[in-house]
Amino acid sequence: MEKTVKTTWINARIFDGDRELPELMALTIQDSLILNLIPMSQISKASFSTSSDTLIDLQGLLITPGLIDSHTHLVFAGNRANEFAARLEGKTYAEIATQGGGIMSTVKATREASEERLLALAQQRLNCFIAEGVTSIEIKSGYGLDVDSELKLLRVARKLAENNPIRIQTTLLGAHALPPEFKNAPDDYIDLVCETMIPQAADLGLADAVDVFCEGVGFTVAQCQKIYQAAAKHGLAIKAHTEQLSNLSGSQAAAEAGALSVDHIEYLDEQGIKAMAQHGTVATLLPGAFYILKETQKPPVALLRQYQVPMAIASDANPGTSPIMSLRLMLNMACTLFELTPNEALQGVTSNAAQALGLAQITGTIKPGMQADLCIWDTTTSAELSYSIGLPTLKQRIFAGK
Amino acid sequence: MEKTVKTTWINARIFDGDRELPELMALTIQDSLILNLIPMSQISKASFSTSSDTLIDLQGLLITPGLIDSHTHLVFAGNRANEFAARLEGKTYAEIATQGGGIMSTVKATREASEERLLALAQQRLNCFIAEGVTSIEIKSGYGLDVDSELKLLRVARKLAENNPIRIQTTLLGAHALPPEFKNAPDDYIDLVCETMIPQAADLGLADAVDVFCEGVGFTVAQCQKIYQAAAKHGLAIKAHTEQLSNLSGSQAAAEAGALSVDHIEYLDEQGIKAMAQHGTVATLLPGAFYILKETQKPPVALLRQYQVPMAIASDANPGTSPIMSLRLMLNMACTLFELTPNEALQGVTSNAAQALGLAQITGTIKPGMQADLCIWDTTTSAELSYSIGLPTLKQRIFAGK
Ligand SMILES: [Zn+2]
Ligand SMILES: [Zn+2]
Repeated sequence: MEKTVKTTWINARIFDGDRELPELMALTIQDSLILNLIPMSQISKASFSTSSDTLIDLQGLLITPGLIDSHTHLVFAGNRANEFAARLEGKTYAEIATQGGGIMSTVKATREASEERLLALAQQRLNCFIAEGVTSIEIKSGYGLDVDSELKLLRVARKLAENNPIRIQTTLLGAHALPPEFKNAPDDYIDLVCETMIPQAADLGLADAVDVFCEGVGFTVAQCQKIYQAAAKHGLAIKAHTEQLSNLSGSQAAAEAGALSVDHIEYLDEQGIKAMAQHGTVATLLPGAFYILKETQKPPVALLRQYQVPMAIASDANPGTSPIMSLRLMLNMACTLFELTPNEALQGVTSNAAQALGLAQITGTIKPGMQADLCIWDTTTSAELSYSIGLPTLKQRIFAGK
Repeated sequence: MEKTVKTTWINARIFDGDRELPELMALTIQDSLILNLIPMSQISKASFSTSSDTLIDLQGLLITPGLIDSHTHLVFAGNRANEFAARLEGKTYAEIATQGGGIMSTVKATREASEERLLALAQQRLNCFIAEGVTSIEIKSGYGLDVDSELKLLRVARKLAENNPIRIQTTLLGAHALPPEFKNAPDDYIDLVCETMIPQAADLGLADAVDVFCEGVGFTVAQCQKIYQAAAKHGLAIKAHTEQLSNLSGSQAAAEAGALSVDHIEYLDEQGIKAMAQHGTVATLLPGAFYILKETQKPPVALLRQYQVPMAIASDANPGTSPIMSLRLMLNMACTLFELTPNEALQGVTSNAAQALGLAQITGTIKPGMQADLCIWDTTTSAELSYSIGLPTLKQRIFAGK
């Protein structure tokens, strides 16, 4: 039997995934798990120094769950910085698309890139998230748009998980955009996703979930529903990009199919919210894309609160509409752009983000039995994580006890 | 005679403070200065390996001038994260002010804080800027609002310069807000600033410039003009917060007084711009405050371009309206919120920022004789600095050759 290792932090301010606890606490982890969380008023210092291998007095500093980014598109090749510049220099979207810009430039570069190259590029991006305290992250495919390329992106995501101290949930987003080969034949492409991509990704153990872009410029609700059926048949969870640019009632359809989350949802209506509340679907807000696209329609935060639909916050890191390799910034943007409270924003990158990934039993909250995924911050107040950009400093990041 | 040390980077993509050069270059620094910058096509590799102590092949990676943040309020005590939370939880500005919030809470905490405490707090903030490649930064006082406290803040700023590899320009912002002791007697406070603060700050060598908040809720143009006269009399440069919330023609008055820069300027009009063009005054844009305050009136970028007024971009780092310890983020915000081109944004944190601080002969551009303040980035294109948030990685930061 291996020796277990216990570490205790005393005098810790705790945001437990739901709220900032009113009392200073003592938090003990044992190996990779949280062992217990006890108010300082109920313990004596002496009792810890004898039972823990390491005892650290935090003097009021904050511990939160490790942060969770529940929506990213981290694996792609190509660089759209020059397209960003061209747009600001006065070129139109049409001119840029004609010159090979837009999402198809990313698809082209991604298809051409080797797995090693994609891995190296994604590693740089992942480093940004690890450095700011992210311990679980979702990574979607979606820039391959053919069977081999989509599986290649998922393999890269799985490889990143092997190589890094982070939990990665992978999502097959074959239905991200219509590939040029299927121009005028979207239903044939949906068939390819349902009959080949999903079964292969499932059989190879490469995907934890399936996602769609349900939108006028993406896929119809009926097409997405075919994908949900295929996902369910192959035991994969469901996520969906819905109601970003218009209201197609895609969120309702996804919720009724048992989706873990629907994401973007600026145009979501009350009927959709009712369906989400009924089916336990998380509302994932993506303030980075809202900011980059200069959107004005905000997600229906008041109604989501009213129906007690959990809100997650994610980076949507992608080369087109959210070239933002930061989850920390999303905390401030969720407050500044969507008027979330700092507490709601933090729930959005901890407990609610875990729920959006089907990980609520494993991570995202500080309670006994959960994974010891923790961040220790150089601040005494959890609101500072949403208020300040750049500070507070992350003093320590702990993934599965290490 | 001490031995000089030469370092050469070859195959470097150069943004020289004005533009990205079309050819790959060889850049040589000698001790603390830039020695020369030569197109690769005009040199042979061999000639460098004999004449330089160190030769580094950048293989196309980007070198920019060290970044310059020309407008910060970095020295203060107190924490307004809970005020930020209270506002988002539904408290009004009036309620928060009644409970001791707002700028006066920062003034109170700052007056009470020791110099050591202020130094430690400002050091944490400064670390954020140093880490992202800032090699020159302006730091204003303005949370003391009495003679001793304002001088205390300037001493802290000077101490930061001693302790860190960074160039710090200090600015006396006595006329930031009316202190409670002078309620109903603003002219008496202006007299104190002109007759005591400015002379003492100048005599002690604590300030490089003087700044004002020229605004309906700040000080009138006439009051600011008294301050400009006192600054000029004592040999200090002039800067001004103008036209942030309304148009008082404060920018014109500042330009006519010879101001290095006028800052914020969302409500600036053509007459003011003409005065700025005539007197060589830089327009400093502060997109962080615009973002945090959810402003809708944008600075007159098209007119500034038309009159060829140089635009600087700064963080305005402060505890109330821009709790943002990042100049890098301002590059993206200048493009996204104010439609600057990536090239204009980079000029705004290099050559134009240097001009806004009176440092154009020393730093902010890559040319022979300038200080060797440089950043080497893990990208081949300068537009990526404005396009991406979090990437590219800063590979090396060089301050005065080190
Ligand atoms: Zn997305
Ligand atoms: Zn300011």
